[in-house]
Amino acid sequence: MNLTILGCYAATPRTLTNPTSQVLEIKNRMFLIDCGEGTQVQLRKNKVRFSKINHVFISHLHGDHVYGLIGLISTFSLLNRKTDLHIHGPKGVKELILIQLKLTASWTSFDLYFHELEGKESQVVYEDDKVIVSTIPLQHRVYTNGYLFKEKPGERKLNLGKVEEYGIETCYYQKIKNGSDITLDDGRVIPNALMTFDPPAPQSYAFCSDTIYKEDIIPIIKDVNVLYHESTFLDSEEHLCEKTMHSTAKQAATIAKQANVKQLVLGHFSTRYDSIEPFKEQAQTVFENVHLADDGKIFEF
Amino acid sequence: MNLTILGCYAATPRTLTNPTSQVLEIKNRMFLIDCGEGTQVQLRKNKVRFSKINHVFISHLHGDHVYGLIGLISTFSLLNRKTDLHIHGPKGVKELILIQLKLTASWTSFDLYFHELEGKESQVVYEDDKVIVSTIPLQHRVYTNGYLFKEKPGERKLNLGKVEEYGIETCYYQKIKNGSDITLDDGRVIPNALMTFDPPAPQSYAFCSDTIYKEDIIPIIKDVNVLYHESTFLDSEEHLCEKTMHSTAKQAATIAKQANVKQLVLGHFSTRYDSIEPFKEQAQTVFENVHLADDGKIFEF
Repeated sequence: MNLTILGCYAATPRTLTNPTSQVLEIKNRMFLIDCGEGTQVQLRKNKVRFSKINHVFISHLHGDHVYGLIGLISTFSLLNRKTDLHIHGPKGVKELILIQLKLTASWTSFDLYFHELEGKESQVVYEDDKVIVSTIPLQHRVYTNGYLFKEKPGERKLNLGKVEEYGIETCYYQKIKNGSDITLDDGRVIPNALMTFDPPAPQSYAFCSDTIYKEDIIPIIKDVNVLYHESTFLDSEEHLCEKTMHSTAKQAATIAKQANVKQLVLGHFSTRYDSIEPFKEQAQTVFENVHLADDGKIFEF
Repeated sequence: MNLTILGCYAATPRTLTNPTSQVLEIKNRMFLIDCGEGTQVQLRKNKVRFSKINHVFISHLHGDHVYGLIGLISTFSLLNRKTDLHIHGPKGVKELILIQLKLTASWTSFDLYFHELEGKESQVVYEDDKVIVSTIPLQHRVYTNGYLFKEKPGERKLNLGKVEEYGIETCYYQKIKNGSDITLDDGRVIPNALMTFDPPAPQSYAFCSDTIYKEDIIPIIKDVNVLYHESTFLDSEEHLCEKTMHSTAKQAATIAKQANVKQLVLGHFSTRYDSIEPFKEQAQTVFENVHLADDGKIFEF
């Protein structure tokens, strides 16, 4: 699982900072999360293979999370993309894109599917044989969801020495990897646990931006490997959190601690600060394993 | 008069090339022409004073000329702009912006005025005491206008030696600069030409992008100081001009020659070419005074 930060700063794009967008690679799937202005250029700059993105997850309809989507879709068309593209996001995202395509006399070279969200409870929005994605209802000035990406448990690892010792034929290997016991010709039943090792623990990633401090999300993100939580402000601007519905670094860390996550990545920094180091320092007073996002940074988990 | 090229490449924004946008400074007014994705970052990168832009002129509603407008407007609001902003562009530009403001639950901190165009003849779209701007109807896949920016003739320069020689009081100076003759106390009439010099010749700038080769524009842009004309293609791709409704460098030069302009600036280069130098070479087989636009380039005229 790896995460490429394309942009992790709040509000307006600037010369050296980009609005929210990131690419999560998990089980060989590539998911784009949020799409602020300039995302397509950031994808190029970070050498992400555009064509592998088939699902885009939009947290909320604020410009710094969605203004780059129409440009990306247009570029996919100019590149003559043929693969379906799925957009998951709040109700309104379909109108936002379609009206722009209509007014710019554009169309897509591929099928475009919108999956609009209105629910207030966590719901599954994507599922295949290896990954499941569900929403994390957040609380912001407009309807907002985070997204939880979870690997499904993989198949068990074969203990090759053991299966050979029992003289089991290779045609049964897949069945064993799927968890079955085996009955030998002499009638003995070999329990699966004797022939296999546990698969690697499934990984999980929770993206939570933008939101006010909200303990309701803790049961949803409990024990995830990596939590990305917005931290727009430092302690000195905590008084702005309620009005703007954002969080401080310390609040993000408090969520991380209570949810017992393994690692916390902070992002969505207000551009008012000259340095982002204090975000880490303040968060670490509450929770130790903190990383700072930054545009162009790649995390390998 | 100076021109800052923010972006001059066709189609998709890329790591090192930006879609169309430029800033014309003329008589201390600052006009933004077209606004592809990333324009606000290009404005910052080129240290253009955002707040001085009060009028934006959009040639046509293709993404590479307009997708950056909503982001710029949003940023103006975040910066708490109070001055009116005027958007001139094809019918539809108002809906394009307002629907996005609505769907992103945004509003502006300033008054936003749309001046939508539908006319097929050249028309005046802006006029003040020093500058006049009119449309240049172009021919592209969608309704498109170029824009002609013309300084109005300035006041005449006072020949200070002469007016003092005639003993004319200073309270008449403005009248003389406005072109009046003066009757002295002894009845003599002093013709204005004896007391003044010609003002500097008014400058003019014609922006023509995107368009197929179109001789109809020649009377409108006749004798301008600077013509910016699109040249999407080199000769080798001339066969694409009719379908895509773009021009070659040589066609742009032919327009420049026939319109007797002083200087030609080429832009809107297709990103298929590794070097833009051949655009200049091919144009110069027809018209000598050719410049190549490039992102970040500033022309002083």
